[in-house]
Amino acid sequence: MSAAAAGAPPAGLDALRAVLPAHVLVTDPARLEPMRADKSGHRSAAAPLAIVEAEAASHVQAAMRWASEHGVPVVPRAAGTGLAGGAIAGGGELVVSVDTMRRVLDVSLIDQSCVVEPGIRNAELNELLAAHGLWWPPDPASRAISTVGGNIATNAGGLLCAKYGVTREWVLALDVVLADGSLISTGHRTVKGVTGLDLTALMIGSEGTLGIVVGATLKLRPIVEGAVWTVGAFFDDEATAAAACTAITAARIRPAIMELVGIDAVSMLAAYSGQPMEGAFVLVQTDDLGAAATSETVAQILAAHGGRVERTDDASRSDVLVQVRRQVHFALESFGTVLVEDIAVPRSRMAEMFRACHEAAARHGVRLAVTAHAGDGNLHPTFVFDGEVPSDAVWACANEVFAAGIALGGTLTGEHGVGILKRRWLIDELGERQLALQRAVKAAFDPQGILNPGKAL
Amino acid sequence: MSAAAAGAPPAGLDALRAVLPAHVLVTDPARLEPMRADKSGHRSAAAPLAIVEAEAASHVQAAMRWASEHGVPVVPRAAGTGLAGGAIAGGGELVVSVDTMRRVLDVSLIDQSCVVEPGIRNAELNELLAAHGLWWPPDPASRAISTVGGNIATNAGGLLCAKYGVTREWVLALDVVLADGSLISTGHRTVKGVTGLDLTALMIGSEGTLGIVVGATLKLRPIVEGAVWTVGAFFDDEATAAAACTAITAARIRPAIMELVGIDAVSMLAAYSGQPMEGAFVLVQTDDLGAAATSETVAQILAAHGGRVERTDDASRSDVLVQVRRQVHFALESFGTVLVEDIAVPRSRMAEMFRACHEAAARHGVRLAVTAHAGDGNLHPTFVFDGEVPSDAVWACANEVFAAGIALGGTLTGEHGVGILKRRWLIDELGERQLALQRAVKAAFDPQGILNPGKAL
Repeated sequence: MSAAAAGAPPAGLDALRAVLPAHVLVTDPARLEPMRADKSGHRSAAAPLAIVEAEAASHVQAAMRWASEHGVPVVPRAAGTGLAGGAIAGGGELVVSVDTMRRVLDVSLIDQSCVVEPGIRNAELNELLAAHGLWWPPDPASRAISTVGGNIATNAGGLLCAKYGVTREWVLALDVVLADGSLISTGHRTVKGVTGLDLTALMIGSEGTLGIVVGATLKLRPIVEGAVWTVGAFFDDEATAAAACTAITAARIRPAIMELVGIDAVSMLAAYSGQPMEGAFVLVQTDDLGAAATSETVAQILAAHGGRVERTDDASRSDVLVQVRRQVHFALESFGTVLVEDIAVPRSRMAEMFRACHEAAARHGVRLAVTAHAGDGNLHPTFVFDGEVPSDAVWACANEVFAAGIALGGTLTGEHGVGILKRRWLIDELGERQLALQRAVKAAFDPQGILNPGKAL
Repeated sequence: MSAAAAGAPPAGLDALRAVLPAHVLVTDPARLEPMRADKSGHRSAAAPLAIVEAEAASHVQAAMRWASEHGVPVVPRAAGTGLAGGAIAGGGELVVSVDTMRRVLDVSLIDQSCVVEPGIRNAELNELLAAHGLWWPPDPASRAISTVGGNIATNAGGLLCAKYGVTREWVLALDVVLADGSLISTGHRTVKGVTGLDLTALMIGSEGTLGIVVGATLKLRPIVEGAVWTVGAFFDDEATAAAACTAITAARIRPAIMELVGIDAVSMLAAYSGQPMEGAFVLVQTDDLGAAATSETVAQILAAHGGRVERTDDASRSDVLVQVRRQVHFALESFGTVLVEDIAVPRSRMAEMFRACHEAAARHGVRLAVTAHAGDGNLHPTFVFDGEVPSDAVWACANEVFAAGIALGGTLTGEHGVGILKRRWLIDELGERQLALQRAVKAAFDPQGILNPGKAL
């Protein structure tokens, strides 16, 4: 698929320089260096040849025209917060960055939509929308630092998406620069629309392999009003904690947040924070009208399963409970290098997936702590190890974890993307025929294979 | 794109007969005849050569293998309730019907999902789910007679979708038979999943041009509990009625249903029903917790805009108000043949779109009554005319209506699909480059162009 050999001299870079403002084309080695990595812990063998720091769609178009003409592979990028290596650039590649394209071009209360450039940060956008009483619901844990464009590229989820949906549900239309440099507008600014194939949905989660998003019309909703109630509960074992979570779902309750922190993660957090706690932790938040009554039912269900329950609407007490979940990542990092995995299984199989993780970890003698978005069955088994690079034992264990997830009716990645991390397992989930079809679709968009080669597909 | 010439003798039908049970391959002219039409009012020039009345995915696979080998165009079909001609079959074509594949294979309360065959009727499925306290929200007006497979093929909407989303939001995974007869499983049974390109979303709304859905895993939600409140209001003019609707949205209220019936439609309904009523009618329903209080606010907003308001939670009184909306179609049919159009504009442009419809109708001297899903800006301008076939004036008027919709930032079809009706306007909305890209994607799925040729793209 790739084109120019890694490390090849940037043959026609002068031709690109000629059609871009000088400051937009970056070749300073110090600025190229960070492009070799993202937040996945992986790193390319060499720096890319240049960055197009696009300030407008026309810069992206010029870059893609040049790349097409010269057969140069392109890595689309924004903030570089990805966890799967999808935005890592290597030798001979051109980075096309939309990191500085951050404008909000329109916000409409009546249409409950906004038009943005892709580089705007998720949290920054939502602060601005809050002034209008509006909200864009996708909320990856990285929301303070990740971009709307990146959320779109990975179909980002987060804590709230069991109730409020993933990124795909909240995007109406996209402006996309194709591999050949042409600019198309997909989708519609209306709530409904079925003209032609749904290329907007296809772009979402495509990890930069089909085109580069340079503008997005986002679907918004009113901010959810009223008090939020928080319930936290510790359980003796994960299987019971998972059973309590499924009992909440079975009671037809729709919590805003329902998280499960595994026993090992809790014990590492206790050591990190110096606060005594043990067992598996379940965090549930209810919102909207009826939040108080619903949280009461949640507390009863958790207690009936043997949970040691606390229920509160006090903001500071609630924050203490929420931090048990939010601090886990930092706690794990204090014990070594972390590799965050990301699999999703049907909610009913969550307890089995926890068990499969522990069995695989024991078999390979590796340290593995597990947290889960229990509302939607999305688990983040997280390896903690010494040194910079995962050992063979870690990879062998990860392999078994993925296989177990797929065997339980699950999927390789719930919200982080395939990137470079999971390509080798792709065929197990998709099968040969579908993978061939996906590659044919990719070729329809990008016949030369210059868009993010070696990633996702 | 097409293959066999229309009306060509079914060269190798014997080869197909050899691999299917006898009753599955239908060539009885009396049964072929209805395949020439759907509910669009259009009709093909000749009957198709046969129907494969599939009872299993393997029958669909056998049909597609045969069709691929012989280059025979295939029209996928279920109940034939489409409004855009997408399921109409003509001479030389093979109908592959999933109409009798209606089983529900699994319902999971904990996973809030079910697995169904595509021929099951929407309403039939929801009756069955209600016993589990679950609900599949897509609710096209045709829900009693339309199939889940057809809902998927057109990404069906309905009255409730401003609040509860369209079909695409409620499908997790699909089993699809491709043009070459191979069977793939797209998507995942989990709530989240981003492995590979989102072919599930791409299939939804593709109107039978990419493959034939033979199974679907649907995302469900708990039934919304509690009382439903209904508010109805008559207004002197449509612009004020539309303004009242946008004021409700601007107040950050999320009604379950918000409909606007135009003045001409109301006057035809008055004549049809013998009940005195006049003006433009707005129907709003609120549900879930807080429905009563929200409906009170809705009533105040409608009254403040000059509406003559009635508000009720009485079931029979509510039904009277709802019937004003639901009876419109029958009222219009009592005045002549109807052609239901389907455009969507941003909510903020709805009043302008009503006006554009009336101006175009006046210019061409045709009868045009307009209703709208005001919650999402989806209008159904409906032509009423004598005789079976729309006059040139009707088509000319429709042309102007579409052009006006696109000029207002809208889309050609909100929920019915492109089918054969709107192909000629496709390029106006998509542009040349995107249309070429869509056709390349189509070719990746169906290189011979045998799947529903001449439809949608």
